[in-house]
Amino acid sequence: MTRSDLAAVEEVNAEFYAAFEAGDLDRMSAVWAGGPYADKVGCVHPGWPLIRGRDEVLRSWALIMANTPYIQFVLTDVHTQVFGDHALVTCSENIITMDDTAGEFASLAGGSIVATNLFLRVEGRWRLLHHHGSPVLDQAEGDEE
Amino acid sequence: MTRSDLAAVEEVNAEFYAAFEAGDLDRMSAVWAGGPYADKVGCVHPGWPLIRGRDEVLRSWALIMANTPYIQFVLTDVHTQVFGDHALVTCSENIITMDDTAGEFASLAGGSIVATNLFLRVEGRWRLLHHHGSPVLDQAEGDEE
Repeated sequence: MTRSDLAAVEEVNAEFYAAFEAGDLDRMSAVWAGGPYADKVGCVHPGWPLIRGRDEVLRSWALIMANTPYIQFVLTDVHTQVFGDHALVTCSENIITMDDTAGEFASLAGGSIVATNLFLRVEGRWRLLHHHGSPVLDQAEGDEE
Repeated sequence: MTRSDLAAVEEVNAEFYAAFEAGDLDRMSAVWAGGPYADKVGCVHPGWPLIRGRDEVLRSWALIMANTPYIQFVLTDVHTQVFGDHALVTCSENIITMDDTAGEFASLAGGSIVATNLFLRVEGRWRLLHHHGSPVLDQAEGDEE
């Protein structure tokens, strides 16, 4: 594992969120693995069951982006491990979004998602194979104490 | 990837849930990677942020198991991919649990968790490196339609 492997993975990880922020399905499509790996692609949106398969995953992103007029991510706690042609990135997605249901009174809302992102290197390019995002509840840790 | 690789990974995946059902911290400890990989271990319990490091993860399991008088899993949609010395398992955890706060009126409750489990082969034995579980909300998919 070289420093440049880590940097290359984290660059694609950042592009995943940038594509969502831009609402750009072409960029989002370029992030995800395809070809012989299309069937292996998987995605868990917060609160959703697993979606399997590249086409189904991209369809879900089209739907979500169409319903998200504004979203911005600040990534923290980014940790990356590279093992051969696979890499695991975990990060906290600190989200600012806008609810468009209120018209001119549209409000900004925040939230925190924890993400597990698994990447695959195909012909020298890192692609996203599996994304799992889930909401962090404020009181979750305290519940057990 | 051989059939026996898949079977060996799925056996350890099943043992992870069996250890939780049994409330057996020794068995749970044996499932997780350690030694040089202890710092790489990560776990997201449903609604929690990421817990990093073998000791911290096992401490969280001790706490959760101490507060779970009864839990039973039925795993469905188990999909396994093996790549070299790593393997990805996704599955649905269909849960029956018991709430002990009601004394003799203790009630059984159900729920569904989607899980992403990443395993690592160390000296021929598959160990859990990363677990991410999150609740599946009944209406989540419908929200976007």
